[in-house]
Amino acid sequence: MSKISEFVSKHHLQNVEELKELLRIPSISSLSEHKKDIEQAASWIATKLKNIGMEHVEIVQTKGHPIIYADWLHQENAPTVLVYGHYDVQPVDPIDLWETPPFEPDIRDEKIFARGATDDKGQTFLHIKAVETLLASDGKLPVNVKFCIEGEEEIGSPHLPKFLSENKEKLACDVVVISDSDMWERGVPAITYSLRGLCALEVSLKTANSDLHSGMFGGGVQNANHLLIQLLSSLHDENGKVKVEHFYDDVVELTELEKEQIKALGFDEEKLKKSLGLTELTGGENNIPYPEKISSRPTVEINGLWGGFQGEGTKTVIPNEAHAKITCRLVHNQNPEKIQGLIKKHLEEQAPKGCAVKVTLQDTGNPFLTPIDSPMMQKAAEAYEQVYGKTPVYKREGGSIPIVSDFNQVLHAPVVLMGFGLPDENLHAPNEHFNLENFDKGILTICSFLELI
Amino acid sequence: MSKISEFVSKHHLQNVEELKELLRIPSISSLSEHKKDIEQAASWIATKLKNIGMEHVEIVQTKGHPIIYADWLHQENAPTVLVYGHYDVQPVDPIDLWETPPFEPDIRDEKIFARGATDDKGQTFLHIKAVETLLASDGKLPVNVKFCIEGEEEIGSPHLPKFLSENKEKLACDVVVISDSDMWERGVPAITYSLRGLCALEVSLKTANSDLHSGMFGGGVQNANHLLIQLLSSLHDENGKVKVEHFYDDVVELTELEKEQIKALGFDEEKLKKSLGLTELTGGENNIPYPEKISSRPTVEINGLWGGFQGEGTKTVIPNEAHAKITCRLVHNQNPEKIQGLIKKHLEEQAPKGCAVKVTLQDTGNPFLTPIDSPMMQKAAEAYEQVYGKTPVYKREGGSIPIVSDFNQVLHAPVVLMGFGLPDENLHAPNEHFNLENFDKGILTICSFLELI
Repeated sequence: MSKISEFVSKHHLQNVEELKELLRIPSISSLSEHKKDIEQAASWIATKLKNIGMEHVEIVQTKGHPIIYADWLHQENAPTVLVYGHYDVQPVDPIDLWETPPFEPDIRDEKIFARGATDDKGQTFLHIKAVETLLASDGKLPVNVKFCIEGEEEIGSPHLPKFLSENKEKLACDVVVISDSDMWERGVPAITYSLRGLCALEVSLKTANSDLHSGMFGGGVQNANHLLIQLLSSLHDENGKVKVEHFYDDVVELTELEKEQIKALGFDEEKLKKSLGLTELTGGENNIPYPEKISSRPTVEINGLWGGFQGEGTKTVIPNEAHAKITCRLVHNQNPEKIQGLIKKHLEEQAPKGCAVKVTLQDTGNPFLTPIDSPMMQKAAEAYEQVYGKTPVYKREGGSIPIVSDFNQVLHAPVVLMGFGLPDENLHAPNEHFNLENFDKGILTICSFLELI
Repeated sequence: MSKISEFVSKHHLQNVEELKELLRIPSISSLSEHKKDIEQAASWIATKLKNIGMEHVEIVQTKGHPIIYADWLHQENAPTVLVYGHYDVQPVDPIDLWETPPFEPDIRDEKIFARGATDDKGQTFLHIKAVETLLASDGKLPVNVKFCIEGEEEIGSPHLPKFLSENKEKLACDVVVISDSDMWERGVPAITYSLRGLCALEVSLKTANSDLHSGMFGGGVQNANHLLIQLLSSLHDENGKVKVEHFYDDVVELTELEKEQIKALGFDEEKLKKSLGLTELTGGENNIPYPEKISSRPTVEINGLWGGFQGEGTKTVIPNEAHAKITCRLVHNQNPEKIQGLIKKHLEEQAPKGCAVKVTLQDTGNPFLTPIDSPMMQKAAEAYEQVYGKTPVYKREGGSIPIVSDFNQVLHAPVVLMGFGLPDENLHAPNEHFNLENFDKGILTICSFLELI
């Protein structure tokens, strides 16, 4: 490693300058006025990949923003690694809360501040630099490497699944590596081995053919708000358990070992309550520890609720419609479409007398889990240990990155999420930054991983 | 009557055009942006009263919207009638369900469609026209007449009681006549001898100090929507009875005779269901006949309900606030302030763990009852018989005109509620209208009443 390490140190300043170039491009995927910037960022990445020696570099057009593909496939008997990342970024508002402009990268306290610094230009760049380092040092890579870098992650990757399924052979690999997540804390690496999936529904309930006057009909004609409350009450029992039949059927319960591992990571309840302004945490299922609940248990959440009059003052109306928006976070082995169906069935069956209930199915996203003991996971852990001197923490994330499970299912390859961000780097918020101590270490960890597998 | 009748017929078109002018003014009392419209409506009414020959016309400013006073007092030995009405109207949402714009009066099928057409601009206007007709035909009125027309009825008449008690002498009268109620059905007049009172509250529930991401916190941190549903579920039991302690304590149960009278009026459940687009009527208390429930039983209705995301698509948010607007309809002998207090206490006591519940007390209005056999009631019945050829039905109304009981209590005069609306005229709802067949007949009935007493 010392040759590699020296090379990375020597090129540190130059590497940071190059990252700054990329960070200066305001490639916000959700805003159409940044279409040109998106193209410029894609082109910058493609040029960079060519310059470091990657081959078959392609800017693949989609119905949205382009995907960049590149490969280096000269190790016939070695495994193939597919690196996924994204070059698009979140919008920057509220702009006035940024200490320095979001697209003028600034280094303070050994951190580089800019939109995309950690999510995900900075972390994607580490892979490019790792490959460059290995190629420049040895003239070749220890394994085969493919890149697939998209520009629509921040808007839900609408075109990536189609690209994956239409390019299975081209993208075929033995492992997918993604760096778009966090370390546990400063100096302690982490591998996210599980993400929750999700599914969304909207329920609308209708009674009479118009709103009614509560003086004329109050006490006689049913109120849509009352019926919606009755209907939604049926979703959870008094212990916070979801009461939808078969909802938990496919949940793989945590083993005692896993529970102990989660417990060992520690949880500061007082600190959390203070930061949220709460005196008690009463969400979800009773009698399950908080860290398990938010990472390893499925949920049904009513994200939105409305019916009748919301204006100023009072209105003595009996509303004839009421609505709710529902999303579920789902765990490994649960099927989002199946759960959607169960909830729809439940809501239809529990529909109170005297109303029509309509359930609309919305988005779904698969949950993801790569077993900790899978070989690629262990190699990643070893790479971290070599560079950071610490065994990484294995963690389950409560959020969802739907395309992670798409890679897993379409390419039949394990996905390893090697994060180099820190939990307080303000992703999606003002003053996003990336800690430079994880810049060179990130490059070295990826180099190690490529050499180890 | 024939001279009067001819005069009314002859001026029908002109009278309707004048009503349209008034209906075009969007005098919504609950929305502060309509303050100028309220003033315009008040001024329109005052000018009209002057033009027909009423004297001492005054626009009395209050801390809210103005009250219009006018009188004609040239019959020394005759009784004095005080006419009460209101020129303010309800909000118009949901606006997209109106077939024609709410403030562009439209005549279809001999009905005039507009917000306020029946409640109460249309019905108040009948009294103005009756007085105009008598003055124009005879040069004088058969009795003394005073007008008191306010602009805050739809927000609970907050300033009228003070006006009444500070102007007892000025408003002194032998009978108060109000047309803000319904006939029994087409062709069958009705006198309302009882009205429900009301009280209003708003409940707000707060959890964390901001909305939270359901990926990071879902299943662990409480959701304000869930807690609001839990809280509001506690208001009714499974038989539709209000579960608030002492809620029914002061209710005077109907006698068997009253129940029989109500039953004798008949109730066509199938017709009602058809008109409302319902297959079942499931509102209110089980096992009490519908006509009793809507006229003689108190209620707790959730008029409005909201929390979290209501936009297009999905948002994986755990809302930190949720709200509900509640009103109760109350019956004779119940005290609105006492009931407000009971409900506030209930909501605070039932507050789920992990949230702060804030209950705001809003409007109240007393219930009302005038005995059927009182003399002024009998004169009104005679007037209806002369014009409609039918004895009016005596009914208990489920609605509230809180100030009715104030008039009764402050001025020590009987209140007679002569309604000219029909039960399906969509008051407080989209497509409010007034049947023009009761326009001329209404004017004539009021003329008869003034001549009879």
